[in-house]
Amino acid sequence: MSDKIVFYTAKICPFAHRADIAFREIGLDVEKVEIDLSNKPSWYKDVNPETKVPALTIQGKSIAESLVLIELANDLKPEAGLLPSDPVTRAQIRFVIEYFSSKVTSAWYSFLRDFKKENLKNYLDALDAAYTRINDLLLEQASTGPYFLGSQFSLADVAIAPFLIRQEASRKELFKDAQIEAFTKYPRVKEWVEGITSRPSVKDSYPGDDYINDSFKNKWGLSSL
Amino acid sequence: MSDKIVFYTAKICPFAHRADIAFREIGLDVEKVEIDLSNKPSWYKDVNPETKVPALTIQGKSIAESLVLIELANDLKPEAGLLPSDPVTRAQIRFVIEYFSSKVTSAWYSFLRDFKKENLKNYLDALDAAYTRINDLLLEQASTGPYFLGSQFSLADVAIAPFLIRQEASRKELFKDAQIEAFTKYPRVKEWVEGITSRPSVKDSYPGDDYINDSFKNKWGLSSL
Repeated sequence: MSDKIVFYTAKICPFAHRADIAFREIGLDVEKVEIDLSNKPSWYKDVNPETKVPALTIQGKSIAESLVLIELANDLKPEAGLLPSDPVTRAQIRFVIEYFSSKVTSAWYSFLRDFKKENLKNYLDALDAAYTRINDLLLEQASTGPYFLGSQFSLADVAIAPFLIRQEASRKELFKDAQIEAFTKYPRVKEWVEGITSRPSVKDSYPGDDYINDSFKNKWGLSSL
Repeated sequence: MSDKIVFYTAKICPFAHRADIAFREIGLDVEKVEIDLSNKPSWYKDVNPETKVPALTIQGKSIAESLVLIELANDLKPEAGLLPSDPVTRAQIRFVIEYFSSKVTSAWYSFLRDFKKENLKNYLDALDAAYTRINDLLLEQASTGPYFLGSQFSLADVAIAPFLIRQEASRKELFKDAQIEAFTKYPRVKEWVEGITSRPSVKDSYPGDDYINDSFKNKWGLSSL
């Protein structure tokens, strides 16, 4: 059994980005293999039968699913502090990840898939409700940031950063004329977004706004509203 | 701040059942409040703004989402062994939960929502693919059961049991004439289903097949195929 740890990823994919951030935070030594999602190699189904990224081979086992992998990163090196020791705070971190995924990310993908001005109001209303609640959840944890837990970077930030950084890229590029001014109504969210998108592990593993926006345009034929 | 721990649940709900099983396994002393999902009390949004079950108030905080709550149960009493200490095995447990939810549970709900004979083959094909893979995942963990990890009952069993026990209730009642013989092709899955559905924490928190089947009939107007 090989000691080598192999990380299968794709730059475009926010789910894979979660794992990349977590592995950087714990200093995990991985061999990175980029998978072309539009033309997946046939051998990849032997690594991950679902052929999705991210996946990790470690100790002869293949592990998939982004949230499973970031929990694994914490379990491999708990002293990195990606989860605090208090059980209730750990639960609040896991809740905000689930909440953000089901409310913000799903609204964002729906909007990109059917990207037109008539749908903008529904999207903004969904974001407004979600960010109002997330602002409260952030304040309940820590009155100042930048992170979910204040000064401590945690799995909440790991899991949400890849989506927020891509949504910010969309906002600046695609919504030019629509002038979406994100986050001004939610000051603690604004501080959080600025904090997590400037974290080295997040920035250094991000392919850049142009790469993301070009991919969105190629995939969904998007142009500015 | 009250020391009392309050568990908001509903007998019909497999998600709430997950939390109930986990709390029994760790011996958590909770005050149980049954929420009528067809007529939710107005005060409940102050407990859980999403008004879903399960939810738990603990140390003055409200925590929701079934997978968050079963992880919380493990964090409150790690010595109960709902997660083993090996990081990779923990990841495999979390993966099978995610896999079962996305492949088996979603196929089952889709089928119940649009319950007719013409859809049966698609449902059985989806189950066949999923159970073939789950049988392999089970064998990879332990060549004999009854549980995912062999003799050790874990969060994999906690999370999946409520869905399997309800699917078994459906199978016996709704598929009478269609004669679905589940699991015979997947011997390790069969052993697993028998093991987890006879676990005291699972059985004692289950309202019974008649209750489940009557609720399905009321909700979706189902009758036998």
